[in-house]
Amino acid sequence: MALKLYGTAMSTCTSRVLTCFHEKSLDFELVPVDLFAGEHKQPPFLAKNPFGQIPALEDGDLTLFESRAITSYVAEKFKGTGYDLIRHENLKEAALVKVWTEVESHQYNPAIAPIVYQFLVAPLQGKSPDQSIIDASVEKLGKVLDIYEVRLTGTRYLAGDFYSLADLHHLPYTYYLMKTPAASVVNERPHVKAWWEDISSRPAFKKVAEGMKFGGK
Amino acid sequence: MALKLYGTAMSTCTSRVLTCFHEKSLDFELVPVDLFAGEHKQPPFLAKNPFGQIPALEDGDLTLFESRAITSYVAEKFKGTGYDLIRHENLKEAALVKVWTEVESHQYNPAIAPIVYQFLVAPLQGKSPDQSIIDASVEKLGKVLDIYEVRLTGTRYLAGDFYSLADLHHLPYTYYLMKTPAASVVNERPHVKAWWEDISSRPAFKKVAEGMKFGGK
Repeated sequence: MALKLYGTAMSTCTSRVLTCFHEKSLDFELVPVDLFAGEHKQPPFLAKNPFGQIPALEDGDLTLFESRAITSYVAEKFKGTGYDLIRHENLKEAALVKVWTEVESHQYNPAIAPIVYQFLVAPLQGKSPDQSIIDASVEKLGKVLDIYEVRLTGTRYLAGDFYSLADLHHLPYTYYLMKTPAASVVNERPHVKAWWEDISSRPAFKKVAEGMKFGGK
Repeated sequence: MALKLYGTAMSTCTSRVLTCFHEKSLDFELVPVDLFAGEHKQPPFLAKNPFGQIPALEDGDLTLFESRAITSYVAEKFKGTGYDLIRHENLKEAALVKVWTEVESHQYNPAIAPIVYQFLVAPLQGKSPDQSIIDASVEKLGKVLDIYEVRLTGTRYLAGDFYSLADLHHLPYTYYLMKTPAASVVNERPHVKAWWEDISSRPAFKKVAEGMKFGGK
């Protein structure tokens, strides 16, 4: 039975999982959830994820949510298929993948998410972007990327000289960031820029990016 | 060679890792880092974690940071020792541990951390707690715990009828929360309260809690 992912390609968290599916060359079905109609807050979807957030995965009788838990599960279950995202044969490399995956969750995501929200989501909701939130978040993200710049001077990817789930998790938000004036925070840092150009040009992500249209942009 | 953890027992993130060590019955050395002297922002510590946050782990020539990456590494490396925190022999149960570990990271922690900061850390820095931040965060945490209450009606622990890393990750912040007036957000929900009393009474955490003194409280 094919994996069933409930979500929508424009969503960053759904795209994170879709990119993982493509890296692993897996068959899957994307079951659309209509966010504008509030389908994710209705009982059928809440039965899959009580927090009312996309995506949710069904794999046979197992239902999972939280995009980073889903990618981690998929990368582990299908470790012998497609690209190895978790370095499952090397405990030390696998540990560094975990470290930089947590860095994305706790350092990068809290800084970048408000920028993308203000520039791209707020206008869809009829609100003007809040420049003070953007400025504070860009400053915060810049400090995180200063550390990435040093890291990426020594290794080609975040966890080492190998692409991994840690890099992959950064793709969807950064893709949207690069469509905003705040893209300079990446472009001003040469190793971060080269890393971004490298990871965003992987075929798995390019397929997913085709579906990442936000308010026509 | 014993594991070396750089941190301080009063820190939530250090305590998260210490609790994991005790559950796994591991030998370790806690190397103190003096936060009040800013030791975590000085080059020797920054070489271990460029983000300047405790804890950091040294295991032989491997250096790791981000508390949740460290616990995950330790639970995997020592899966045959002490209590099994990741259900490593059952892919589905392991997947649910991942889901609820991510819930702690992305739903619970962002709501609880500002409450603990305002009540316990701000006064140490000579600031008054900001009641508007406390109120907004308690409301947010209450919504998360409404979902936990339903979940814990069906299973004894978050990932299922087994204690896991997902529960463990909640311990340090909740321990401090319970020393504040906002403890009611836990006490008002009977299944959440019972879960808290259960997980906080495990011997591994009780040992760690002895060292969790915050401003003399």
